[in-house]
Amino acid sequence: MNEVLKVGLIGLGTVGQGVVRVLATNAEEIAQRAGRRIVVTDASVRDASRARDCDLSGIRLHADPFAVVNADVDVIVELIGGISPAQELIAAAIARGKPVVTANKALIAERGNEILAAARAQGVLLAFEAAVAGGIPIIKVLREGLTANHIDSLAGIINGTCNYILTQMTAKGQSFAAALADAQKLGYAEADPTFDVEGIDAAHKLAILASIAFGMPLQFAAVATEGLSKVQAQDIQLARELGYRIKSLGIAKRSARGVELRVHPTLVPEDHLLAKTDGALNAIRVHGNAVGQTVYVGRGAGGEPTASAVIADLIDVARLVGADARHFVPALGFGADTLRALPTLAFADIESAYYLRLQVADEPGVLRAITSILAELDISVEAILQKEPRDDEDATLAIISSEIPEHRCDLALAKLRELPFVRPDVSRLRVEHFA
Amino acid sequence: MNEVLKVGLIGLGTVGQGVVRVLATNAEEIAQRAGRRIVVTDASVRDASRARDCDLSGIRLHADPFAVVNADVDVIVELIGGISPAQELIAAAIARGKPVVTANKALIAERGNEILAAARAQGVLLAFEAAVAGGIPIIKVLREGLTANHIDSLAGIINGTCNYILTQMTAKGQSFAAALADAQKLGYAEADPTFDVEGIDAAHKLAILASIAFGMPLQFAAVATEGLSKVQAQDIQLARELGYRIKSLGIAKRSARGVELRVHPTLVPEDHLLAKTDGALNAIRVHGNAVGQTVYVGRGAGGEPTASAVIADLIDVARLVGADARHFVPALGFGADTLRALPTLAFADIESAYYLRLQVADEPGVLRAITSILAELDISVEAILQKEPRDDEDATLAIISSEIPEHRCDLALAKLRELPFVRPDVSRLRVEHFA
Repeated sequence: MNEVLKVGLIGLGTVGQGVVRVLATNAEEIAQRAGRRIVVTDASVRDASRARDCDLSGIRLHADPFAVVNADVDVIVELIGGISPAQELIAAAIARGKPVVTANKALIAERGNEILAAARAQGVLLAFEAAVAGGIPIIKVLREGLTANHIDSLAGIINGTCNYILTQMTAKGQSFAAALADAQKLGYAEADPTFDVEGIDAAHKLAILASIAFGMPLQFAAVATEGLSKVQAQDIQLARELGYRIKSLGIAKRSARGVELRVHPTLVPEDHLLAKTDGALNAIRVHGNAVGQTVYVGRGAGGEPTASAVIADLIDVARLVGADARHFVPALGFGADTLRALPTLAFADIESAYYLRLQVADEPGVLRAITSILAELDISVEAILQKEPRDDEDATLAIISSEIPEHRCDLALAKLRELPFVRPDVSRLRVEHFA
Repeated sequence: MNEVLKVGLIGLGTVGQGVVRVLATNAEEIAQRAGRRIVVTDASVRDASRARDCDLSGIRLHADPFAVVNADVDVIVELIGGISPAQELIAAAIARGKPVVTANKALIAERGNEILAAARAQGVLLAFEAAVAGGIPIIKVLREGLTANHIDSLAGIINGTCNYILTQMTAKGQSFAAALADAQKLGYAEADPTFDVEGIDAAHKLAILASIAFGMPLQFAAVATEGLSKVQAQDIQLARELGYRIKSLGIAKRSARGVELRVHPTLVPEDHLLAKTDGALNAIRVHGNAVGQTVYVGRGAGGEPTASAVIADLIDVARLVGADARHFVPALGFGADTLRALPTLAFADIESAYYLRLQVADEPGVLRAITSILAELDISVEAILQKEPRDDEDATLAIISSEIPEHRCDLALAKLRELPFVRPDVSRLRVEHFA
């Protein structure tokens, strides 16, 4: 057996503690797979007095994370998250020729191009399986498993907080605000939930997946996002009656027109696996021209699942230390010299099917006026559902459109809003059929 | 860019043609990922006159497959299947120091230990992603993606023919014989369906997955199999009413008592992803102690999906040619010197929940007599369903038992069969809850 692989761990939060625990619990099997033992020898902690749910004996603790980079370790694991000082720490590790494993999706998505270039220049491995979808080895699948394919699209439930909230809204008929409050009480959502419910976290992950799938540099700024707060309880109910579930999806597609990178609440046909992925689970659908549709499901967050990904990367590192860098899998799957920035489409330019919900006065001629506007704009109605008004309430109309350019959908909405019997509360959500 | 990787292809059937097509269609992306072009330069065909659905220009065709091994190629792709001459061809390639990619599950499952030992001795890569579950990169997932985990169980729909037949039986209420006949007409089942419907094909695949999951040599002979023919249309219907779907699963589990390797029709709770995987799809559930449950779904057979796996292996080979073998991922995930044969359990020794179906005369005291026998053997009834007799037919009784040793279940069945009002047509199927 080779020498021990000495790990320097920056950050002993949920994931860091998970890494220490799993490395200890599964030490023997991990050594049998990696060809050497993998041992955390140094770690940095912000608050050394805090109780931690793992055995830290044998680990030198440092207050200064840079001391971990400078310690006698073979590889750095960065788990503090955020841009700074994570970026400086990783840069320092690379400069010292030390491979890096990170779970930092924000950093990879926003600064990955420069960080990966630096790693490449030094011939140093930089691995980030844990940055996306926790324990699902989706980066390895895209980067090494589906490499024969021209991947034309991927779509995934990649934010557990959103999926938990939508699952609760669906199961209990709750409003978004009530489900969010429950999620916060249970620790599934942060006190400031913006990052999750506005789609920024999913956008980070989507940018990473799209780069690897399509062979383009990280283009986080091009991800279009739409938050969960616009989903109302009645939309979930109407979608169900039309045969759909509402999920917050990260979607990447490419066509001759360009690349779409978008995160938004989406109607998904109820018989698709993505529609059936509930709670805190993640699921990702990948479509390639050889393999067809494949789907990957698992826990997307938490100490142990994320540690599973971090340690898989460490095992790859353990095996490749000392190898010529030409034997490495390129960080984004494609050779760095072949990555090409691709033109991306804004929401206004995408094509999609849409779900429209209108509240209308219960008068004769309403349906004819609405369908006339849609027909004039060459928008076909794939499904329609009108709910009887109760008492003197307005009637509710839900429509699934054909695939149309979004600007045309919005034009139709503008015209519909001008109708005297259409109330201001209009909802528009995108629909994916995964044909 | 490095030199071209020259591929010698043995076998130009469905998968071989798929490999030629996908390598041509996706040539540019594959080269960008592999760091070099991958080109089939030589191929062997049994019948050169047969029309093939791919462009063979530029490929030297040989009648003798050994001529491909001896040609000026960098890697051999073996796609003829079966034990001989595939084994001799692969041995010859290894002896010449040429890496091998194969889709041959029978050969790897039955002769893998010696073949992998020979490859190791020569420092030659031998890859077989295509041997299991077509386009789903499940071998890479187990061997490299979930390596942090102690994997305690896996279960999968890994035979598309069985899944197609069961899906048809479920959708149409067909008998096994009728659904099989339809599958044969449509080309989803062979004229001699034994290999698929008796679980031998799935047993090959399960033996490979279990080795990689558990770190043991290939133990194909230890796989217990039970065929599909014992499933009757009424079992499918009763299972549905009890909240289950019947799927043919390959199951590998390990515990302190030993390893279970088994293929058999199985009742799966209707809300589990495996229950929802229909038609010719494959799906595999893996449970690890860090990651929890993960599930992988995709097309399990066919030219293009299988070619996807073959070419992914070729890209790995392209990257690793010339590397020291200590940088290779071990063929079975664990270092070869750490593989340990594990004791395996026969069907009689496993523990499981069971579905029992009895036809009984519609007399007073029947239910009491049956439940008394079960209680005496300490078998709890988790669910029970009695169907009213129509006209003067017997009543049908379906029972889901608690988890019990199979020998005790069979003892109960023997005692039940002795009851005067129990008819000889008794059915017993295993139930998995994936707790």
